[in-house]
Amino acid sequence: MGAFRPSGVLALSSDFGGLGPYEGQMRGAALCAAPGVKVLDLWHGVPPQDVRTGAVLLPRLWASFPEGTVHVVVVDPGVGTDRAALAVAWRGRLLVGPDNGIFTRALEEGGEARLLGIPGGAVLSRTFHGRDLFAPAGARLAAGTLTWEELEPPRKEPLRLELPSWTGGAGGGARGEIFYCDPFGNLVSTIPAEALGPGRGRVEILGRAVPLVETYGAVPKGALLALVNSFGLLEVACRDGSARKVLGAGEGTVVRFLPGEGEGAG
Amino acid sequence: MGAFRPSGVLALSSDFGGLGPYEGQMRGAALCAAPGVKVLDLWHGVPPQDVRTGAVLLPRLWASFPEGTVHVVVVDPGVGTDRAALAVAWRGRLLVGPDNGIFTRALEEGGEARLLGIPGGAVLSRTFHGRDLFAPAGARLAAGTLTWEELEPPRKEPLRLELPSWTGGAGGGARGEIFYCDPFGNLVSTIPAEALGPGRGRVEILGRAVPLVETYGAVPKGALLALVNSFGLLEVACRDGSARKVLGAGEGTVVRFLPGEGEGAG
Amino acid sequence: MGAFRPSGVLALSSDFGGLGPYEGQMRGAALCAAPGVKVLDLWHGVPPQDVRTGAVLLPRLWASFPEGTVHVVVVDPGVGTDRAALAVAWRGRLLVGPDNGIFTRALEEGGEARLLGIPGGAVLSRTFHGRDLFAPAGARLAAGTLTWEELEPPRKEPLRLELPSWTGGAGGGARGEIFYCDPFGNLVSTIPAEALGPGRGRVEILGRAVPLVETYGAVPKGALLALVNSFGLLEVACRDGSARKVLGAGEGTVVRFLPGEGEGAG
Repeated sequence: MGAFRPSGVLALSSDFGGLGPYEGQMRGAALCAAPGVKVLDLWHGVPPQDVRTGAVLLPRLWASFPEGTVHVVVVDPGVGTDRAALAVAWRGRLLVGPDNGIFTRALEEGGEARLLGIPGGAVLSRTFHGRDLFAPAGARLAAGTLTWEELEPPRKEPLRLELPSWTGGAGGGARGEIFYCDPFGNLVSTIPAEALGPGRGRVEILGRAVPLVETYGAVPKGALLALVNSFGLLEVACRDGSARKVLGAGEGTVVRFLPGEGEGAG
Repeated sequence: MGAFRPSGVLALSSDFGGLGPYEGQMRGAALCAAPGVKVLDLWHGVPPQDVRTGAVLLPRLWASFPEGTVHVVVVDPGVGTDRAALAVAWRGRLLVGPDNGIFTRALEEGGEARLLGIPGGAVLSRTFHGRDLFAPAGARLAAGTLTWEELEPPRKEPLRLELPSWTGGAGGGARGEIFYCDPFGNLVSTIPAEALGPGRGRVEILGRAVPLVETYGAVPKGALLALVNSFGLLEVACRDGSARKVLGAGEGTVVRFLPGEGEGAG
Repeated sequence: MGAFRPSGVLALSSDFGGLGPYEGQMRGAALCAAPGVKVLDLWHGVPPQDVRTGAVLLPRLWASFPEGTVHVVVVDPGVGTDRAALAVAWRGRLLVGPDNGIFTRALEEGGEARLLGIPGGAVLSRTFHGRDLFAPAGARLAAGTLTWEELEPPRKEPLRLELPSWTGGAGGGARGEIFYCDPFGNLVSTIPAEALGPGRGRVEILGRAVPLVETYGAVPKGALLALVNSFGLLEVACRDGSARKVLGAGEGTVVRFLPGEGEGAG
């Protein structure tokens, strides 16, 4: 990798929901370790303990922070087991979190992993390494008081999970699946924007043809639509309604993009 | 206007709810554009896509941040259409967001609007200008790397909406309407604190007389009350209950303030 | 106390929930009073107006921020009455909030209270001292523009509440009670981690024996467990379920820790 140049920014992501004491405890733990660090929240809405969904969604958010950011990522159902703790250098950022597959995409894209040791003398809880290990280590990496060069290679290959995926692209259509329903009933698929080519055509799901549009407002209230969402993924939604309920779709439902004429999502 | 002197503070408001990835993406986009800026959340609880309600509520929050603050405001159902993007100079702050009426009050109060151009080379999504345009531009304005003086006047008059309003004041009582029910069932009216004079009297709504008091604790549990809320607006509430349910009231319900004797809200 | 050395960090806690305009107004009010202060959220999830529960939970969070932090604490059902406003020096931090018992533990542990006066000329709302008094005063204390030495002793002894408590410890078991059910149905008891000794044994609640374990994953889905939670308190939970519903337990339910063999929570 190129050298990681810390910018003093620490961004927190987790499956804690965003309203609990855990987020606040991580903010405090970061400042205890590195008082000058700028601590911000990225997203605490990963479905609880759902490493696989987090592993697909989070990489599409990390890049929204500048190079030099340290991202602390706590989706950690295995806390208290002997899973390792990692820092992964990826596109000018460092990702800090458990070795449980949450960094699968970053590793597939050439990210390099190193081992996060337990600081001498630190007492770790068995239930909250976000506060006791990841936030402090991330803060020190963000401040430059702990450096990438000081970290050792992992003792074994970091875990990579098989993630929900897609096939096709390059103008010939694409086939993917719904892997995440957001709290509003929007159905998020594995098909990325870059698979849509010029972005004209339609989407098929459970035998229904859904227009690919650019904005929610392009269809009447109550109608189904497909668009590229804020994660850069193809999403099936229902204007002012729940596509999950309307379609009876869920995780694993197959989605197809068929190129052709239409309004387009370009 | 007097010169805007940026303080390096960027405050984010929207209708995103406060828990989604969108808020985090805006924080990151701001830092990408201006790493030294201090990014804080003001309020993400504007009812979704409800420009009119946001246009009444938000001006009562903006002033809680110091002069020199840039407020990014994303209530943007028309994203992807050709509505313009604005910066509005108002009381020593800059307000940055879509030209859809969300700045009606600021413009009525003498705010001056200028056009936010698309930075050369920027690729805008069609669905999320909060991340792709408003947060970066706001951050640069907050940092001083983009200045008010560089912005051009809008090509057409910025949109002003007809907002829910009130009449009266100056000691003779006031008449307004409920325009917002908060998640707890509190009924927020258009009547501002300054219309209540010394603040003694009672409030009438749907044929019921409700005492104007200073605190929730002034009435028994389950009783209706009226007070000046945190927005500085007259609110009808039910102690430990939902005034919306108890009264069957909602948006558009008429509210009257009748001056007289009483505990008062001074 | 030793001298309080402000670090420029202001941490906000309250019973506002985390999503309202109130949190944002406090952030802005802090910056108005002291623009250079670093404002972060600790926890806004204290049950509404529940001073007693806040008084037990919050002290277990304050220490997660570094010494030199000013904690603004707004659980204030008596706002608008004549209750005093306090700053309490505790373990190198300052706690700022109402004199209503919220600081009972800090005072029991030797915290020293001083009076927060109303700044000359300030106009206080009767309903929101978090914005109008506590956040600004806290920010000035965090910035050092208001100092501990300038504050006067309180005119009367600060209020201490009788808090839900526990007995035992030191290897002989412990008896406490449930005092807080979190939104997930986890039952939080008054028994602190330090009462569990080596942390091996079982927990009894409503005639049921529940294993004391280290992690949720140690029991099958749907099974009851007890562990030391993120507050450092003994908690009875149900894996992937609600212990409150499963047990029919609630605030006041007695909990016993019986030392013995077992997996342990060490």
